[in-house]
Amino acid sequence: MAEPLERYLHTRIPLSAALGVRVLEATPECVRLTAPLDPNINHIGTVFGGSAAAVAILTAWGLLHMRLAAAGLQTQTLIQRSRMDYLQPIRADFEAECHFADAVSWQRFLTMLQRHGRARLTLGTDLRCLGRTAGRFEGAFVALGTMLAIPDPP
Amino acid sequence: MAEPLERYLHTRIPLSAALGVRVLEATPECVRLTAPLDPNINHIGTVFGGSAAAVAILTAWGLLHMRLAAAGLQTQTLIQRSRMDYLQPIRADFEAECHFADAVSWQRFLTMLQRHGRARLTLGTDLRCLGRTAGRFEGAFVALGTMLAIPDPP
Repeated sequence: MAEPLERYLHTRIPLSAALGVRVLEATPECVRLTAPLDPNINHIGTVFGGSAAAVAILTAWGLLHMRLAAAGLQTQTLIQRSRMDYLQPIRADFEAECHFADAVSWQRFLTMLQRHGRARLTLGTDLRCLGRTAGRFEGAFVALGTMLAIPDPP
Repeated sequence: MAEPLERYLHTRIPLSAALGVRVLEATPECVRLTAPLDPNINHIGTVFGGSAAAVAILTAWGLLHMRLAAAGLQTQTLIQRSRMDYLQPIRADFEAECHFADAVSWQRFLTMLQRHGRARLTLGTDLRCLGRTAGRFEGAFVALGTMLAIPDPP
């Protein structure tokens, strides 16, 4: 499932190609991206904070996209708010990973979307480089729904 | 002073060129950048949140860079933490503006840098598109100093 997401990102969000983003893993439970140092380098030879934030957003957005697709839902998803902690300078190619397996929150999100055509979900992305956590991102996303189907709770 | 900053950004932080960033104004009191919709477009035809965040970071970082250069200081400046509120979808070319004219905070920052070789400053960037505020960014930056000179308070 990594290739279709990568193609989607590079085609529909062209900055993802400029960032050099590759999709390593893409399931409804986990999306993992990687990006190289070179196109993202800054004035002191580490990854530019804006690149790190952009890759973190793509990762979290990618996970929401995978979950909504798996649930057969057509929505527009937008970022509403974000927060990022830069913990370590990133001196090499890096990875970004977003997990989500909270069935209760997900069901609440689906119920809100069904009732109000609008629901919010907060997702976190960890950035890692050379085996160390280099940054933490948290973003609140809003889905505006055209509902195709509401699946039963698992 | 806009041209040297633009050249610096495009050369030393190459993602700024991919974002299509142009510097409209660059003084120690105000940095204003602009970026076009096209290279920053997302899957729903508005500006990708990661592009908006990256341009906001460059604007605030640019202002700190201008202030430190005007003060004759050589430092490494890094982003430590950031927060972004996405208030409106950005449907066209947009601008980012960061002001800073707080003499008291600036003097405290310089004193910290002199005493400890390290000081932190929080800066805010407003994003605007078609005459409306579209987003608000706040970032905490750390300067690690090689002090060349400490100017007297104004």
